[in-house]
Amino acid sequence: MSDSVFLEPVRIGMVGGGADAFIGAVHRHALRLDGACELVCGALSSDTAKAKRSGLDFGLSPERAYGSYQEMLTAESALPPEQRMEAVAIVTPNHLHLPVALAALEAGFHVISDKPATLNFEEAQTLAAAVKAAGKEYGLTHTYLGYPMVREARHLVQSGALGTIRKIYVEYTQGWLSGALEQDNKQAAWRTDPSRSGPSGCMGDIGTHAHSLVEYVTASRMTDIRAWLQTHIVGRQLDDDGMCFFKLENGSTGALTASQVCAGEENQLRIRVYGEKGGLDWSQEEPNTLMVKYADGRQMRHRAGSNMPLSADAASMCRTPAGHPEGYLEAFGTLYINFARRLRGDQTAFVPGISEALRGMAFIQSVVASSEQNNAWKEIQNG
Amino acid sequence: MSDSVFLEPVRIGMVGGGADAFIGAVHRHALRLDGACELVCGALSSDTAKAKRSGLDFGLSPERAYGSYQEMLTAESALPPEQRMEAVAIVTPNHLHLPVALAALEAGFHVISDKPATLNFEEAQTLAAAVKAAGKEYGLTHTYLGYPMVREARHLVQSGALGTIRKIYVEYTQGWLSGALEQDNKQAAWRTDPSRSGPSGCMGDIGTHAHSLVEYVTASRMTDIRAWLQTHIVGRQLDDDGMCFFKLENGSTGALTASQVCAGEENQLRIRVYGEKGGLDWSQEEPNTLMVKYADGRQMRHRAGSNMPLSADAASMCRTPAGHPEGYLEAFGTLYINFARRLRGDQTAFVPGISEALRGMAFIQSVVASSEQNNAWKEIQNG
Amino acid sequence: MSDSVFLEPVRIGMVGGGADAFIGAVHRHALRLDGACELVCGALSSDTAKAKRSGLDFGLSPERAYGSYQEMLTAESALPPEQRMEAVAIVTPNHLHLPVALAALEAGFHVISDKPATLNFEEAQTLAAAVKAAGKEYGLTHTYLGYPMVREARHLVQSGALGTIRKIYVEYTQGWLSGALEQDNKQAAWRTDPSRSGPSGCMGDIGTHAHSLVEYVTASRMTDIRAWLQTHIVGRQLDDDGMCFFKLENGSTGALTASQVCAGEENQLRIRVYGEKGGLDWSQEEPNTLMVKYADGRQMRHRAGSNMPLSADAASMCRTPAGHPEGYLEAFGTLYINFARRLRGDQTAFVPGISEALRGMAFIQSVVASSEQNNAWKEIQNG
Amino acid sequence: MSDSVFLEPVRIGMVGGGADAFIGAVHRHALRLDGACELVCGALSSDTAKAKRSGLDFGLSPERAYGSYQEMLTAESALPPEQRMEAVAIVTPNHLHLPVALAALEAGFHVISDKPATLNFEEAQTLAAAVKAAGKEYGLTHTYLGYPMVREARHLVQSGALGTIRKIYVEYTQGWLSGALEQDNKQAAWRTDPSRSGPSGCMGDIGTHAHSLVEYVTASRMTDIRAWLQTHIVGRQLDDDGMCFFKLENGSTGALTASQVCAGEENQLRIRVYGEKGGLDWSQEEPNTLMVKYADGRQMRHRAGSNMPLSADAASMCRTPAGHPEGYLEAFGTLYINFARRLRGDQTAFVPGISEALRGMAFIQSVVASSEQNNAWKEIQNG
Repeated sequence: MSDSVFLEPVRIGMVGGGADAFIGAVHRHALRLDGACELVCGALSSDTAKAKRSGLDFGLSPERAYGSYQEMLTAESALPPEQRMEAVAIVTPNHLHLPVALAALEAGFHVISDKPATLNFEEAQTLAAAVKAAGKEYGLTHTYLGYPMVREARHLVQSGALGTIRKIYVEYTQGWLSGALEQDNKQAAWRTDPSRSGPSGCMGDIGTHAHSLVEYVTASRMTDIRAWLQTHIVGRQLDDDGMCFFKLENGSTGALTASQVCAGEENQLRIRVYGEKGGLDWSQEEPNTLMVKYADGRQMRHRAGSNMPLSADAASMCRTPAGHPEGYLEAFGTLYINFARRLRGDQTAFVPGISEALRGMAFIQSVVASSEQNNAWKEIQNG
Repeated sequence: MSDSVFLEPVRIGMVGGGADAFIGAVHRHALRLDGACELVCGALSSDTAKAKRSGLDFGLSPERAYGSYQEMLTAESALPPEQRMEAVAIVTPNHLHLPVALAALEAGFHVISDKPATLNFEEAQTLAAAVKAAGKEYGLTHTYLGYPMVREARHLVQSGALGTIRKIYVEYTQGWLSGALEQDNKQAAWRTDPSRSGPSGCMGDIGTHAHSLVEYVTASRMTDIRAWLQTHIVGRQLDDDGMCFFKLENGSTGALTASQVCAGEENQLRIRVYGEKGGLDWSQEEPNTLMVKYADGRQMRHRAGSNMPLSADAASMCRTPAGHPEGYLEAFGTLYINFARRLRGDQTAFVPGISEALRGMAFIQSVVASSEQNNAWKEIQNG
Repeated sequence: MSDSVFLEPVRIGMVGGGADAFIGAVHRHALRLDGACELVCGALSSDTAKAKRSGLDFGLSPERAYGSYQEMLTAESALPPEQRMEAVAIVTPNHLHLPVALAALEAGFHVISDKPATLNFEEAQTLAAAVKAAGKEYGLTHTYLGYPMVREARHLVQSGALGTIRKIYVEYTQGWLSGALEQDNKQAAWRTDPSRSGPSGCMGDIGTHAHSLVEYVTASRMTDIRAWLQTHIVGRQLDDDGMCFFKLENGSTGALTASQVCAGEENQLRIRVYGEKGGLDWSQEEPNTLMVKYADGRQMRHRAGSNMPLSADAASMCRTPAGHPEGYLEAFGTLYINFARRLRGDQTAFVPGISEALRGMAFIQSVVASSEQNNAWKEIQNG
Repeated sequence: MSDSVFLEPVRIGMVGGGADAFIGAVHRHALRLDGACELVCGALSSDTAKAKRSGLDFGLSPERAYGSYQEMLTAESALPPEQRMEAVAIVTPNHLHLPVALAALEAGFHVISDKPATLNFEEAQTLAAAVKAAGKEYGLTHTYLGYPMVREARHLVQSGALGTIRKIYVEYTQGWLSGALEQDNKQAAWRTDPSRSGPSGCMGDIGTHAHSLVEYVTASRMTDIRAWLQTHIVGRQLDDDGMCFFKLENGSTGALTASQVCAGEENQLRIRVYGEKGGLDWSQEEPNTLMVKYADGRQMRHRAGSNMPLSADAASMCRTPAGHPEGYLEAFGTLYINFARRLRGDQTAFVPGISEALRGMAFIQSVVASSEQNNAWKEIQNG
């Protein structure tokens, strides 16, 4: 992914992501990496004073370090078009995703939002209608779809190399909520609070990543799910663990597990897809390798530059030659550069968007309903 | 595991395991490895001529290469006690496990049998009664319980190092039945035939290994299961794939998946157990390492000799120093040497036995019932 | 490594790194990543027209896309201080490193240069004198010293955790020059041309990385070397492979191998350091893990955020939490942010500099001399 | 490797390998594994009383638990041919290898000996002459040549799949002699005593394994060596560490390192061979996998049964299907079954023998000479 074809950098305003936040810093690193975006303003906290102070800490000019997103939208709209921000990056807790997105769209700005897109499926439908009405770009940062070897996995499935797909095993295992961390950790507090996080904790936070990965790699929709959510920490308000059986439109079936109480695990997202001819295996913690297993042999495919026989799509997502590992920020950066490409007119550039927003919220809705009804099979609505 | 304390080798007669069989050769290698057992006779096929011929091929003396197990039991019983075989090793297809075991016990011989113990739970109860009545040893070769690092995993759980156990993920993934192999492969043919294999294919063949591994490592009983069996090959009579949720007596929950149609996989049995303090991860294909993950660090524990800080139990199961890998035949051999030790009077030696036989068949029964009743929760009977 | 303490970005002018270059793009990604540097101008090729065109391609304003580095130095010096570039990033072939650096220093600019610093040891001494005279910062981008787990390795050695150091094995294995690539690949052409690359090919290009890694991790100087350089491709002018024995000041000894003709390898830089109590093992291709081996156990240490018990120095070099892999561009970016910190007054920030420049060139000089004199032991001069 | 074609077991008498020995137990497990050999007598210690007691401990009949090897040779020679032992297995410290072998050959017995074959090259020549004169089989248990994936590696080189071979890196790293263990460990004591071990410690004990592996895998002779031996423990009489450059007859060059003072390592023997088309990588600690790296992809080849596309030679050395790991004892057992096959008339069965004995001792002689002469290049004599 050369940086040699210059794009006029997309001017971004950020909502959320102040001093103690986690994902805000990730977005900032990612948008800077390729030079295709530029952070020009922000409303970095819901606390006005902190928002302004954080703006200065991150190098915004004082007059564009706003005290609220409403103020930002108003002030930026008043700037000359060539200075004005072009898109809003939303990195707040989940409950603010919809109101900020709606306000931004209504004010005529593009939106790139952290996931999950909204608190629930109804909100996602509202969002979808607003995006359509506004005619603006909407990007959803499902990070893991930005990894070249995930793109390669999708290519392998679509090319038929694995044969008809039979089984999918996907898991996302973390340990960081193994204790009652929400009592003194801001990240844990909002993620375990239904009013800010939505109806599911673990499944909303990381199960949705597993779900989007399955649908992306298989290029097929998850149609039905049987889910069992659990809460292991006394007093915790939301699930911190869950397991599902599922069916895909392509006739395959699988298991999805997600947990945030598996002490010792870091960020273990892994997908395996098996067809009648072979299988693939990819783990986020060693993302530069894709293992492909056939009945008569095993290949390790490496993320690489243009010399290696990756699919053209996957190769185009690599910045450095084989053997020079890329990671999480590069995957995230690929979403931002593709978002920039779309804004600059390249509609072939892929960023997860409103379709993935609807799919993710439909998934959460069905998971929660299934779990509440003794793990009954539930259809996953199409948005 | 020194070979320096001499045991008078246990004299074994084998039923099944002739020329085209798979598991018979494994039993023979395993029983020879430590010199604690000796193959003295056999009825190696249900085809009389082939039985005799196979006996000669494997070095039995002609007069002890019998044409049937009934003939073997009668003839051996007539030999002087110091020559007579002491135990029958059963390595036939599943449907013969019970009749051979009953006849052997009735004739006064100990039994060591391949798994699953019988065709179904009722047969296992019959077997249990016969073992009790005969007062003889009954060993069941759940191979994977013979690995030192599996013993170490059990030790870690029992020592409390992982804290209260929360989650278990166990999987057994193979690809060898990805096609309709049963049409011309003898192994595949009987394993997919309900009259010879029992009511479950994949779950009976390999799901039971996963189940026994869970109960052994956690030292807790699986109490309830919700299972979904599938058959991917047109015309196949039994399941070749399945997924389960389960609950253990210790309050933890988990997922068990098993498949024989994941093309490209070999013999991928893996267990992960997570508690509130940490987790463990063991894979059969790299059996000399146990990964232990704590919130503040990760350890790789290696199978090793007496110098390494393994638990005494696990260390006692190693034949060679650290760095000299042991494998499947060594794990199997450990079951045979322990069986010999029991026959020679050491009742502390562990071999899976009638209790594991009952547990395994109860597991299969509940899995099949659950799957037939739309994946309903089913209790697993205690034998 | 939070981006929350704002540094006024350092204004960088780049020399070299136009359209077909490799390392230029790496420098640009790295300097953008943390927002601590900003590319404001460049002379991106030695071909004037291409230099200007590349400048536009990378988004420079037309008046600051210069046709030569001399032009850049003159023009930038004439700009007001608050607009003027502050430092020159040198990413040309090796033979231009010295003249550009001298001109930049003389014109009053700081310098950050790709390695090796110069063509030979004499040039390095000239450079050192010029840096001293100018009183400016000089950074040398030995990328691999920017990895957190390399810093952790150094910490382990310095803390005494491994005991007295005995053995070092370091290797850098690539395959990209396995054929006579120099005939049609610009990168290969200059790297195998002594007039542009210096007296050593493989050892100058990648052996110096291995050497700097040894000295950094052990915090000890390499004093003596016995080297054997080889050229495997007919007609190639420089070594493409080499092996060395070496001694360190701390009394330990080791082996260093480097090759660019090992077909199938990508960028396999690996170091192992063993002391009387234990050893460490780090590979650049999986850079987020450091294996530490003691007589009584093995630990996998992971690159991670503030919660993990890494040394403070290593932890401060991480941007994302454990389980979110960082890679080559992040390591490179750490060198740039530390360069920026030094320019903004933090003299504790580490960037390899003139000392590493002298060390590296002295290493090459001794390696070449040793190889020419039948692998005789050669002292490595101290600069 | 089926056990179905019956060989009349070869009757073995063992010299050495009593209660505290290490390698004796390995030989006993290995010879029993496949049923092709049978331990019928022994002189298990140089201490007469202990020799007899150990014989009983290991299940020898009292009259064949001899007090000395001389007694054993005499007594066995007097037995009827169909009872008499056929071959002597020598598992003593090194200095006894030659006298026992000579006596056994003279008495008309075949010999299978632990390595190194003798104390020095002159002894090896004496042994070679004696073997030739006696017309008996002589096997040398270079264990690692018994691994199927080592055989596969040789096949890959010989088939031309890697192209012309350029580079070999071989290493054997252990940590067990990191302290002055010889003061109270019998194994360590004789291995560091020149009168019992020979002129080299580490290189004689494990360097010879690395050397034999190089010559076997490449099917080429090591012709020249430049070696540097070191002793890290004060008071130790022999080298415990060493490094070499070497040349092969096929024109390739390489590095060989061996150490027994790398604390934390177990038994890390690893070989990498690179040609102009690709490379291979095999590690003894994970012996079931061979990594093959080509410029355009990487394959993991697994040890496996008859269905997998291994070379016929490698496949014939596997006892269990893919995914059922084999290890060190299986590799050792393959040497014993092949030794038995040769005695039963199959001269195609491969066991390292007198040729490897000469090669190994010539290697040690040249290594020691080179190290004593300031690492001068030394030819390796051909026996």
